[in-house]
Amino acid sequence: MKFEISKTGCDPASIPDDGNRFLIGNGYMGVRGTLEEFTKKELAAVNLAGIYDQADDGWREPLNAPNPFYTVVSVNGGALRVQDFPPAEHEQRLDFRYGLASRKTVWNLAKGRLTLRAERFASMDNSHLLGLKITLCANADMRVKLEAGIDADVWDIHGPHYSSVKFGEKDGVLICEAAVQSGGTVAVSRNFSLPPDEFMRGTAIYLPELKAGVEFSLSSVCAVYTSKDLQNPAEAAQKSCAGSYENLLKASKARWDEIWDCSLVEIEGDEEAELAMNYSLYHLNCVAPRGGGAVSIAARGLSGQTYKGAVFWDSEIFMLDYFLASQPEIARSLLRYRIETLPGALKKAASYGWEGAFYAWESQEGGFDACSDYNITDVFTERPVRTYFKDKQAHISAAVVWGIMRYIERTGDLSLLKEGGARVIAECARFYKSLLVMPNARKRWEIHDVVGPDEYHERVNNNAYTNRMALFVFDALEKISEILQEDEKLERECGIAALLEEIRPLRENFYMPKPGESGLIEQFDGYFSLEDASLAEARSRLKDPREYWGGSHGVAGDTQIIKQADVATMLAMFPQDYPEEILRRNWEFYEPRTEHGSSLSACMYALLACRFGNAEAAYPFFMKSACAELRGGGKQWAGLVYIGGTHPAAAGGAWKVLAQGFAGLEYSDGKPSLRPCPPRHWKRLRLRFIHEGQIMLADITPGKAELKSK
Amino acid sequence: MKFEISKTGCDPASIPDDGNRFLIGNGYMGVRGTLEEFTKKELAAVNLAGIYDQADDGWREPLNAPNPFYTVVSVNGGALRVQDFPPAEHEQRLDFRYGLASRKTVWNLAKGRLTLRAERFASMDNSHLLGLKITLCANADMRVKLEAGIDADVWDIHGPHYSSVKFGEKDGVLICEAAVQSGGTVAVSRNFSLPPDEFMRGTAIYLPELKAGVEFSLSSVCAVYTSKDLQNPAEAAQKSCAGSYENLLKASKARWDEIWDCSLVEIEGDEEAELAMNYSLYHLNCVAPRGGGAVSIAARGLSGQTYKGAVFWDSEIFMLDYFLASQPEIARSLLRYRIETLPGALKKAASYGWEGAFYAWESQEGGFDACSDYNITDVFTERPVRTYFKDKQAHISAAVVWGIMRYIERTGDLSLLKEGGARVIAECARFYKSLLVMPNARKRWEIHDVVGPDEYHERVNNNAYTNRMALFVFDALEKISEILQEDEKLERECGIAALLEEIRPLRENFYMPKPGESGLIEQFDGYFSLEDASLAEARSRLKDPREYWGGSHGVAGDTQIIKQADVATMLAMFPQDYPEEILRRNWEFYEPRTEHGSSLSACMYALLACRFGNAEAAYPFFMKSACAELRGGGKQWAGLVYIGGTHPAAAGGAWKVLAQGFAGLEYSDGKPSLRPCPPRHWKRLRLRFIHEGQIMLADITPGKAELKSK
Repeated sequence: MKFEISKTGCDPASIPDDGNRFLIGNGYMGVRGTLEEFTKKELAAVNLAGIYDQADDGWREPLNAPNPFYTVVSVNGGALRVQDFPPAEHEQRLDFRYGLASRKTVWNLAKGRLTLRAERFASMDNSHLLGLKITLCANADMRVKLEAGIDADVWDIHGPHYSSVKFGEKDGVLICEAAVQSGGTVAVSRNFSLPPDEFMRGTAIYLPELKAGVEFSLSSVCAVYTSKDLQNPAEAAQKSCAGSYENLLKASKARWDEIWDCSLVEIEGDEEAELAMNYSLYHLNCVAPRGGGAVSIAARGLSGQTYKGAVFWDSEIFMLDYFLASQPEIARSLLRYRIETLPGALKKAASYGWEGAFYAWESQEGGFDACSDYNITDVFTERPVRTYFKDKQAHISAAVVWGIMRYIERTGDLSLLKEGGARVIAECARFYKSLLVMPNARKRWEIHDVVGPDEYHERVNNNAYTNRMALFVFDALEKISEILQEDEKLERECGIAALLEEIRPLRENFYMPKPGESGLIEQFDGYFSLEDASLAEARSRLKDPREYWGGSHGVAGDTQIIKQADVATMLAMFPQDYPEEILRRNWEFYEPRTEHGSSLSACMYALLACRFGNAEAAYPFFMKSACAELRGGGKQWAGLVYIGGTHPAAAGGAWKVLAQGFAGLEYSDGKPSLRPCPPRHWKRLRLRFIHEGQIMLADITPGKAELKSK
Repeated sequence: MKFEISKTGCDPASIPDDGNRFLIGNGYMGVRGTLEEFTKKELAAVNLAGIYDQADDGWREPLNAPNPFYTVVSVNGGALRVQDFPPAEHEQRLDFRYGLASRKTVWNLAKGRLTLRAERFASMDNSHLLGLKITLCANADMRVKLEAGIDADVWDIHGPHYSSVKFGEKDGVLICEAAVQSGGTVAVSRNFSLPPDEFMRGTAIYLPELKAGVEFSLSSVCAVYTSKDLQNPAEAAQKSCAGSYENLLKASKARWDEIWDCSLVEIEGDEEAELAMNYSLYHLNCVAPRGGGAVSIAARGLSGQTYKGAVFWDSEIFMLDYFLASQPEIARSLLRYRIETLPGALKKAASYGWEGAFYAWESQEGGFDACSDYNITDVFTERPVRTYFKDKQAHISAAVVWGIMRYIERTGDLSLLKEGGARVIAECARFYKSLLVMPNARKRWEIHDVVGPDEYHERVNNNAYTNRMALFVFDALEKISEILQEDEKLERECGIAALLEEIRPLRENFYMPKPGESGLIEQFDGYFSLEDASLAEARSRLKDPREYWGGSHGVAGDTQIIKQADVATMLAMFPQDYPEEILRRNWEFYEPRTEHGSSLSACMYALLACRFGNAEAAYPFFMKSACAELRGGGKQWAGLVYIGGTHPAAAGGAWKVLAQGFAGLEYSDGKPSLRPCPPRHWKRLRLRFIHEGQIMLADITPGKAELKSK
């Protein structure tokens, strides 16, 4: 089984994508897959989870720590940077079984060939630690200079975030303390397996005389702490990087072995899919919070500051299921994050005159909504454009409820409900109740003026997905009311009984868009009356490739072209609502009208295709999701805003397709069963997941599906 | 008293404005104040009322008839056109007491000076007829050529509208028959006081030998008929132009005398205002329908095809009052137009899922809404922009009801109610009833997702003006129910009793935005939270002077900058709702935030200022309205669409300020009274109006106000 990706050559144009592809991470931080000599120009970054800063009027975004991997080799005063001095050979690899990224670069110099190797990893055992090992070898004697330091001149999208940086050295360990503008400190340390010839400001300098054929190796353990972790991050960083590279790597590998034990996917007959799927799980694990706290995952993982490092519905609707199936404690962290950010959601709802909890569209710590009312910059006027992601994308609260209900169903663990989950559900139900409007013309309760998953169509009425999710929330309230009926304390806190009294008659007269004669469900009121322009036609109307497609001025806004799966997402999530024929018809109608301008789109079409038994239709969409990083080339721009980075939701979505679609893993009364629907060319699919603390193995071959404890 | 405007010189840049300023018309047609030698290049046009055509995919627009005034004088083969051959002297005049436009042009030629005089008028006695008199005189003997024809190569904004044109000559009369693309004919004739030397296709050619100092005069009576008027328009045109120019002029003048008898405004101490006001009344009379039919007035009168020759709320809210006060039969025509177009309004409402009557925003014949969903072209991309004038400007139906109620109150004539007016009111009430929505969060009836008079802010909730007008409609239904309570037939037709049963409880729980602590009424939900940018700031953000200010991409859309009076219009229309202090505070808040990007704006601010007793604040806004044509320079562009032309609503609005504001003409139980509030520098204001068939004279001098029959 292949657990490696690699590339040879160094094309500057692929640096941003490579930074995502060769990323290492451990949930606390992600280190972009850039080379040791790279700086902010090449988007080098040690991206930190859950710590944010706002510089001046810029967007609030997560911090990038000073980079302790920064290392440059020089010969005769000439720095060997691939971007300045093209190498004779160059390759990058990632062993994603163990999260070990490496590079090998050969330069032809006047005196001979010099080979630089480096390997790096983020410890899965201690999330504050990173390891880096540099090896030099030449085919002729030569004197080199190796500068190994901490680069505090970090890449920022809306920076700078550090008001001052202090370098120090103690007991052979380099330490960098960066003071955050809005308060707090980020401390980074780097130790060295050899004493340096000299310490300069933030740098250890080595001047080895290389002998032909003899390797010179230098390894470092690096530590990152912030003042959010403890009081004295510099001291902690300095102390904790004392160990050896080898021991750190060994402990980290052992943790990866545990992860794969309950996660590994085996696909006979499709090595590409197998690799893409496991590689996707690698990425999910790189960004998964492991500290047991109340932490979630940013939409672009830990690959940088894109999307402000904010948490979206991606976490609950796309990523959660994999964690529930492999490491429920991580799923619990994601959901605890929502419970802890309820005050922010209550505040947001009140600020718009709604009751209950309206979760942040782009959630930062405390549930602060980092989304701007002007999230797009017009390419023609460079003026900010009013967008409605923040104030109208009402389906976000329902995604939170979906996540909590999913957790309860899969784990049977009700503690989350008692620790605030029930309150979250009640407040979200209150929110949707207050959103309801009754048009006198129709005498039924509707939901108006929202944005659905398809963001290209703004301020629509009765978005099918949103209405369905509101219904789901009302039903969830009924369920937890049954579950919790004996719990008087919770009842007092949440007022569920009285709330249900209010909601029941509203729910009975609540409008849910239904399939018409054609079997099609209208995405929102009036959608079918929009221009039925083809994707090619819409694209041909663009005057600038970076133009935003949506809203009143975009080429899609007044057509049936949608950004991403919307009705399809609803049907993929609630397949039991309709017969397969309806699922199929809607897939066939909406898919050609979908621009797939979001990495959340393909997996939902894939999953839905499996729901009506068409794995062949599903397969290319599954592969698109599973290969989001491998293939690269995703949308890099929305208007004038950079949106590149990794796509953990696509990875999580791919797993959903694999498990719930191709393997057909279903639960009934808490018991898993299989209803497989694999692509025809797959000879065998073996899928691991956790059930009631046991690792289960689903083993699917043509005509046969076995489910057993491993 | 001065009844004349004039200008000297001929600057090509002022040709469009002059075409409006020197316009003549009689309700059936308007002839732009261009010179006889002008063609479509100089926007020459004989614009017809109420007859429309659509060419290909262009906007449906009114027809311009072939131009029977087209006349060119040549000397030695050189055509004397001011645009090609600059004259030594040139002046244009308009005697607006009698609608007599004239020009005098002197050319210095090799042989001597040639003077061309022309005068023209549109008959107020027979609206199909026009008169033109050409006089040539030279200070030396010279031979000239005079070509007098009908120019069928007409100016169109979205043409061409004629599929073929046929010229003929019969008994010395030139006839031109133009076949309209969508069917029908426009026939134009021109007679001549002298037999021509020759008839060429569509042209009479004269070759007079001018003697020094001896005038050569040629006069024409011209007729215009369309197949909408009668079956054989060509025959009618040919026959009806038989009379003499002098007789036609005499009869027309007699009619103008009648108009001024009940309209003349005298202002001692302010000649400029007096002239501007009477000149405004001239324009209103030029476009007023006089055939007793069901016809209304286009927003740009009869000055061309701008705004598609469509009827807007301008007719009822801005123009109606002057006609009610001078020629109620014209007011009746305007309102009968709405009654006759009810089917279109019912259809429009149904097409959006509403009940009742939703009148066209840009009404053409039959109530067809000529407004496009894409009424703006983006200047940067040249793509059409989705606008909401048509589907969201819900206040239009209430304007119709306002007009009908006004007519009943002023005239006491209930026949309009029985002839369909009651049905219109009932259907409009049904419309507003169906527009109501109850947000569960607020448990009251509101109106959402509309555009108010201020079009820059789209899709707003609870626009104060719209909600107030809906209330007015509900109250109007109550009133006519009382008036008509004995009329069983009408009750059967309109179902008013049952409708009122439905509406009463809704009205009781209907939300009307009220003044807050500051005394300010919020224009719509959330308006006060918008950026409070200054006009200068908003203007400075423009990247192109033709940019549309409104909507999601305009510089005003997300600020408190409004296009035109909105809350101010409401308060000017319903001053009794609040104490003067509230009126003043809202004026002072909103006026500086108003771009006055509509000619409907200034007069409402003027009227409102009078409502709280501040004539000095009102005066500049009154003058702006009264001088809309005199000063020219109004907005010529909305995005890439030409919107120039005359502004009858500004003229009507100016009259409202004068009569209802400065003179303070009020009605109580049908009896007029005065509460004068004139500008301080006015020594005397004398205002005429009709009351119960009598001409009344309001005579206002400082400290004294008399009202008597004239």
